[in-house]
Amino acid sequence: MNVTVLVGGVGGARFLQGVQHALGISGGETLEKYQGPHRITAVVNVGDDVWMHGLRICPDLDTCMYTLGGGIDTERGWGHKGESWNAKEELAAYGAKPDWFGLGDRDIATHLIRSRMLRTGYPLSAVTEALCNRWNPGVDLIPVSDDRSETHVVITDPEDGEQKAIHFQEWWVRHRAHVPTHSFAHVGAEQAKPAPGVLEAIENADVVLIAPSNPVVSVGAILAVPGIRGALRTTAAKVIGLSPVIGGKPLRGMADECLDVIGVETTSEAIGRHYGARSINGILDGWLIDEGDTADVDGVDVRAVPLIMSSPAATAEMVATAFDIAGVSL
Amino acid sequence: MNVTVLVGGVGGARFLQGVQHALGISGGETLEKYQGPHRITAVVNVGDDVWMHGLRICPDLDTCMYTLGGGIDTERGWGHKGESWNAKEELAAYGAKPDWFGLGDRDIATHLIRSRMLRTGYPLSAVTEALCNRWNPGVDLIPVSDDRSETHVVITDPEDGEQKAIHFQEWWVRHRAHVPTHSFAHVGAEQAKPAPGVLEAIENADVVLIAPSNPVVSVGAILAVPGIRGALRTTAAKVIGLSPVIGGKPLRGMADECLDVIGVETTSEAIGRHYGARSINGILDGWLIDEGDTADVDGVDVRAVPLIMSSPAATAEMVATAFDIAGVSL
Repeated sequence: MNVTVLVGGVGGARFLQGVQHALGISGGETLEKYQGPHRITAVVNVGDDVWMHGLRICPDLDTCMYTLGGGIDTERGWGHKGESWNAKEELAAYGAKPDWFGLGDRDIATHLIRSRMLRTGYPLSAVTEALCNRWNPGVDLIPVSDDRSETHVVITDPEDGEQKAIHFQEWWVRHRAHVPTHSFAHVGAEQAKPAPGVLEAIENADVVLIAPSNPVVSVGAILAVPGIRGALRTTAAKVIGLSPVIGGKPLRGMADECLDVIGVETTSEAIGRHYGARSINGILDGWLIDEGDTADVDGVDVRAVPLIMSSPAATAEMVATAFDIAGVSL
Repeated sequence: MNVTVLVGGVGGARFLQGVQHALGISGGETLEKYQGPHRITAVVNVGDDVWMHGLRICPDLDTCMYTLGGGIDTERGWGHKGESWNAKEELAAYGAKPDWFGLGDRDIATHLIRSRMLRTGYPLSAVTEALCNRWNPGVDLIPVSDDRSETHVVITDPEDGEQKAIHFQEWWVRHRAHVPTHSFAHVGAEQAKPAPGVLEAIENADVVLIAPSNPVVSVGAILAVPGIRGALRTTAAKVIGLSPVIGGKPLRGMADECLDVIGVETTSEAIGRHYGARSINGILDGWLIDEGDTADVDGVDVRAVPLIMSSPAATAEMVATAFDIAGVSL
């Protein structure tokens, strides 16, 4: 079976572990490469990507790669296990800006290799493939685009009262979204093209899953790349989304702040309607919401199941329901 | 007094500490900037500089900067105190080459700032000045050139028996100079220009000192930049060199291997003659050799003094003798 999943960072990576569990695929630096019949392709958000200190940082790609490759710090959910922060400390001692980003020493190795390859002319998708040769994530990780398509945020600067656009990372990590925020802009998205393999992965999928990632700055940023929505509408596969809302709160992160900005309530129903039914110009055939929750989304098959990703096995149960809605089986 | 010193790395940095001691100048990250009447300008070798993992590494500049700024690992003599090696370990896990270079996590911060500034168009001399704003070395550190002038080494590759040119760092760090070696090439030197301030520092000096650095790949690489020899010959200041040979052995490093390659004996006399007297197309007015040693160098005032740089105070004694030969006094 070919399963294609649209994912962001931490939540997306955990969701992919559940998809792997459902298909009996495992990855990891020290494991044999999976040779079985199934294939998972993750189309990964690049909206959070940023140049910092001359390094190209791709938080969502790296979180997926480290998580599936067994290198993640499981406590934090992002970054390397066994990480140290000495380069960051020295950069701060030099007064180098930005100083609010968690740039780990081990992580820097990944960024050095990526930055060097990008400067040499390799596209991000090829760089990602090269990095994954080490991590062996058991999933084809593809950036949604090799082109720059960065999420920026229009805020009112609390220091001078001026409206300005800042990179999503600055809004998210530095300001923790606690500044007056007006809108998101996907800088470069209009000119961006899907990376090689992305449209094919959607077109040739047996089922397409939309991870319970941030609907605005993860899934929304993926959908901002021209061609992605079209491929989701024309694929013969069913497209099943999972709500990031559990008990009225987003699964993790600050999705509610993002949803507020675009005027969407933090409810499974509102997000489901925001995505919309494929039959009426949207992207969903099915929509999984948390047990006890309700959602009425026109033209979409809504099912309530336990949505807490407490383990890959628990997540695999959701995936099984998604497969069921999609009418596919192993 | 204006003292200009030609220096390499570890030995050069220690020598500069002695010059500072002689002039009552101190530096260091936490100290007030020196405001007194004396000025030390260090013209620093760039032949060891190298791009590695997309980072511009300047070992001699950094060794001088860290040593004088109080950030050096005093045990090793190079690199940061409190250094960790996690990025290096990760780069090796990716299989990234080269894997034989001691790239420390704290050190990487310096390289990141330098590399970003260089890519933005700042010359190395401006980058060095910016980095020194933090370290406050108490010495004007100037790279001999802003242009690429790298020492490469022609060897017979032990693996395939072919002659090839490798970067000095590969020869020095990876092979520990233990490969059949034929010659040195200062790649780019012919087109290189002295960095802003270098010729002026030599011309306007009250005395020019040549540190007991490697005569071939440190001092020799400095002299390979067009204009430096000329400035040394025409300055009104006396030029006093210090021998790197003590008890028939080089002070540190592998100067003997380098001298072998260019057919110069590892003796103070041979090195003094290799530098030569200013009056007969060389660079020296005076030549300090170790006590008990002898050297007859035509046209050069040779003095034997204790040359072990056991402390800044001990080194300051040598500097005082050099001042004496030069006919200058505080």
